[in-house]
Amino acid sequence: MSKGELVLLDCWVSPFSMRVKIALEEKGLSYEAQEEDLFGGKSDLLLKSNPIYEKVPVLLHNGKPIVESANIVYYIDETFGSPSLLPACAYGRSRARFWTDFIDKKVFEAGSSIWKGKGEELELANKEFIDILKKLEGAMGDKDYFGGDKFGFVDIILIGLSSWFFAYEKFGGFKIEDDCPKIGGWIKKCKERESVAKTLPDNQKVFEFVRMLRKMHGIE
Amino acid sequence: MSKGELVLLDCWVSPFSMRVKIALEEKGLSYEAQEEDLFGGKSDLLLKSNPIYEKVPVLLHNGKPIVESANIVYYIDETFGSPSLLPACAYGRSRARFWTDFIDKKVFEAGSSIWKGKGEELELANKEFIDILKKLEGAMGDKDYFGGDKFGFVDIILIGLSSWFFAYEKFGGFKIEDDCPKIGGWIKKCKERESVAKTLPDNQKVFEFVRMLRKMHGIE
Repeated sequence: MSKGELVLLDCWVSPFSMRVKIALEEKGLSYEAQEEDLFGGKSDLLLKSNPIYEKVPVLLHNGKPIVESANIVYYIDETFGSPSLLPACAYGRSRARFWTDFIDKKVFEAGSSIWKGKGEELELANKEFIDILKKLEGAMGDKDYFGGDKFGFVDIILIGLSSWFFAYEKFGGFKIEDDCPKIGGWIKKCKERESVAKTLPDNQKVFEFVRMLRKMHGIE
Repeated sequence: MSKGELVLLDCWVSPFSMRVKIALEEKGLSYEAQEEDLFGGKSDLLLKSNPIYEKVPVLLHNGKPIVESANIVYYIDETFGSPSLLPACAYGRSRARFWTDFIDKKVFEAGSSIWKGKGEELELANKEFIDILKKLEGAMGDKDYFGGDKFGFVDIILIGLSSWFFAYEKFGGFKIEDDCPKIGGWIKKCKERESVAKTLPDNQKVFEFVRMLRKMHGIE
């Protein structure tokens, strides 16, 4: 069966786009990435494909748009069989969906409060962020990955977001490894995978991007 | 195959619990509902089963907890085959997940802004709420249900929330039918289904509950 044409409307620094790219790599799928210029005006294709949110990532599969990053990873997993990213049992899948939703509700927003924060607000933001990571460590338990003994769906969902963690550490003045050694070790292990290593941008480059955001917001 | 024991940690006025009950009814499953007293203290079983959010609904399937209402409906659909609530094709399922997520991000929060609002804030909240319903009308298109020609997953996700719409109309001073006749007609049609009719509480009773919330918040 042909896999069909896969086009990703992308932005290099979007942790949500990174998820999709890692999922595509894990499935061994080739795709064309079209970089959106998010400050210079969005493409007509993006506006047409995602009229509700007008955001990357959008995956076009034979021209049909799939939007919202976790939803795209789900679609990729359902459409392109092996290796399976989600657990085989319905209960395991329900746990994966639960933690995906938790990550999507919490991590990026808490991180934004760090790079936007100052003084007491920053202290609270740092604490909130570490609390979230500690809950995620609880979810991983004594396993190597969120997917158990193998890298899976929830790992993909979180590892994209980790590309901004270096910036959070710098602007927050903390080290994730100190409070959450399990998450620190998990990030290192994930980065040894080819799909992750070739997708995540350089920490310093993301840091410079977030510094630019801070300047745009009048924080620096 | 035995369906196993199904226990629902419930609250009669929770639109999120209603989803789960409608999904269980659609599948023809019997279950035991345990009403939580949300003002008098949560049960140990609820706190143990949903330590992250401590909220209803929780479905216990043979003692194993599944939490977050859309996730529970998904689990029910995956676990208890026919009739299928989600579309058969992966693309259709991705659309159902997208609109489920949209509804969960928007509808209840916009409704809360109505019953909490006054003056100009209330005007804005009313407008936002109607805008959301109009987007949902766009998603339904010229079909009878969000699921196409049959009542399905997204219908279940939204119809539970509709139990609060009468209260929004009363406190907002508008009629949904005037601006969104398609949604108005869809609600009527859904209420003709046994699963929905036996689950949704009386509009007036929900209205009185929301009035009590307003008093608790010092609005009335």
